[in-house]
Amino acid sequence: MSTVGQVIKCKAAVAWGPTQPLSIEEVEVAPPKKGEVRVKLFATAVCHTDLYTLSGKDPEGVYWPIILGHEGGGIVESVGEGVTSVQPGDHVIPLYIPECRECKFCKSGKTNLCGLVRSTQGRGIMPDETTRFTVKVVLEISLAKINPDAPLDKVCLLGCGITTGYGAATKTADLQPGATVAVFGLVQGAAVRKASKIIAIDKNPRKFEYVKKLAPNVELTFLNPDDYDKPIQQVIVELTDGGVDASFECVGNVGLMRAALESCHKGWGQSVIIGVAGAGEEICTRPFQLVTGRVWKGSAFGGIKGRTELPNLVQDYLSRKLEVDSYITHTFGINDINKAFEVMHSGDWRGLG
Amino acid sequence: MSTVGQVIKCKAAVAWGPTQPLSIEEVEVAPPKKGEVRVKLFATAVCHTDLYTLSGKDPEGVYWPIILGHEGGGIVESVGEGVTSVQPGDHVIPLYIPECRECKFCKSGKTNLCGLVRSTQGRGIMPDETTRFTVKVVLEISLAKINPDAPLDKVCLLGCGITTGYGAATKTADLQPGATVAVFGLVQGAAVRKASKIIAIDKNPRKFEYVKKLAPNVELTFLNPDDYDKPIQQVIVELTDGGVDASFECVGNVGLMRAALESCHKGWGQSVIIGVAGAGEEICTRPFQLVTGRVWKGSAFGGIKGRTELPNLVQDYLSRKLEVDSYITHTFGINDINKAFEVMHSGDWRGLG
Repeated sequence: MSTVGQVIKCKAAVAWGPTQPLSIEEVEVAPPKKGEVRVKLFATAVCHTDLYTLSGKDPEGVYWPIILGHEGGGIVESVGEGVTSVQPGDHVIPLYIPECRECKFCKSGKTNLCGLVRSTQGRGIMPDETTRFTVKVVLEISLAKINPDAPLDKVCLLGCGITTGYGAATKTADLQPGATVAVFGLVQGAAVRKASKIIAIDKNPRKFEYVKKLAPNVELTFLNPDDYDKPIQQVIVELTDGGVDASFECVGNVGLMRAALESCHKGWGQSVIIGVAGAGEEICTRPFQLVTGRVWKGSAFGGIKGRTELPNLVQDYLSRKLEVDSYITHTFGINDINKAFEVMHSGDWRGLG
Repeated sequence: MSTVGQVIKCKAAVAWGPTQPLSIEEVEVAPPKKGEVRVKLFATAVCHTDLYTLSGKDPEGVYWPIILGHEGGGIVESVGEGVTSVQPGDHVIPLYIPECRECKFCKSGKTNLCGLVRSTQGRGIMPDETTRFTVKVVLEISLAKINPDAPLDKVCLLGCGITTGYGAATKTADLQPGATVAVFGLVQGAAVRKASKIIAIDKNPRKFEYVKKLAPNVELTFLNPDDYDKPIQQVIVELTDGGVDASFECVGNVGLMRAALESCHKGWGQSVIIGVAGAGEEICTRPFQLVTGRVWKGSAFGGIKGRTELPNLVQDYLSRKLEVDSYITHTFGINDINKAFEVMHSGDWRGLG
């Protein structure tokens, strides 16, 4: 029996309040309105940003109860009025940065940010200020249509984590072959694909084994800041005869963001902020760092345009140009979703999803 | 009678100590050693950086007595052993950033910074730790050989101020035609040549008349922060439907550096720091400013390579592509050099030289 136009029932992992374990509930999902699409999700990854929202500290995520999740893979179930770019049966990755292709951001050719829905998406509601559970019903402009051959339980990782690091390296920093790179807190094998020398900085030495697998053909150096009695940026500058060509901060720690900038080489080094800092926290440095040629930048979702460019990353995965599988350390059913958060929170796997 | 190889006597404006008026003295200048060039200076501009050094607050300029000045124009009097790129009679502009063409900076193709002499130049001495009064004797790699048709009392301004702003706009920011621009504290007509809309921010309304002359074909808006009871970046963002494409901080005020960054448009705006901040002062912002696509950078001498690119700017001046004359508001003989500092210090002309 077709579910088109009907209110449907489905399972959802609901967060009822800050720091509460997620509760698996049966929820009702209304049919999509104009410009909207209802998607059956088959898999989702969990992200530190979900953990951050669940902590109650995210100033944009203060509406309860909420259904978390932004690294999904699914299939279109039905579409609302006027939807033309996807149809029932299409495989899709929902986008946390839409791509309307009409606002000045989308038309600029300079950014993957989109001016639409920004004001309502943080509240988990649609632009008309009503809800149909946005995890399952999204705007057409917030869906990347992908090759149906791609396994949804793998490529859902491209909905956030892998793409963010990969894009930060290839688009935001536009790394050139042979670049030396410092990565603070998270080593994306994909992110640093073009580098010749990677310095990975982390306080958890257990991560280093995983990093080796992700970047097998690169000269890797591991630094644990706890092993040194001087600032880690000074260690890196000395190790690299003046600093790295590019650095990435993936933790969300404003002190590390400064260290990452100051690890860069005078004259051309650039530092990219990926991590999400706590509300109100600030980054600081001496302006001399910039006047002498370092560049401080950042990106969201790696600067990747969701509808236009994400499908190509899925193709790259299918043709084995882009590594995804190695990032998957655990797989859980929806009923065990709280275990996924526990594993992520424990830190042992942090930086690998 | 040839002066080659002889110690010569000449006039110099000597600063005997912090905040002391300059004193015109007869000084002796030794002949140039290996790789060095003795230059007869015909004109120099004064710069706020000279004022800063004279104040005694410049951590790099704490050696007294000193002969200030870094915007000169002169003619080569004699050369030391091994000097091949200039010869007696050549017209030159001395460079505060040399270009040795051999260090990794010069070879990188990514910066105008040079790795040589950095450690000694701030002390006013030669790399061999001795002095021949560096204002008159400089290393060969610190001279830009220029077209002798160019009047030295004009193009000496290209030795710092004009080039810094012009390069910041054309090289560091690589402004595209039609860009909207905010300039904090100093409006370089040349610097913003390609912009379609300029917002000039200054607390001194008397400067605005001069700015109009320097940028006759551009839509100009003047903002005095004292006229508003909200942060000036907020005023600019509202005026420009989201912010400017590029901003420049030319004062050296870390608060303005932040305002300049936060005046930029989300997704692509870039802010360039030109001003020299006080020792130990820091710039700060929320990392979200960078994650949402703004870029924070800076440059010294506008990113212009002195020996390779400065001669072209002199040519541009001679072919009327680059404005210089309008920047000259006063001309003094060397005996009145303290008057030049007084006028600069009074602020009425600040930003126009």
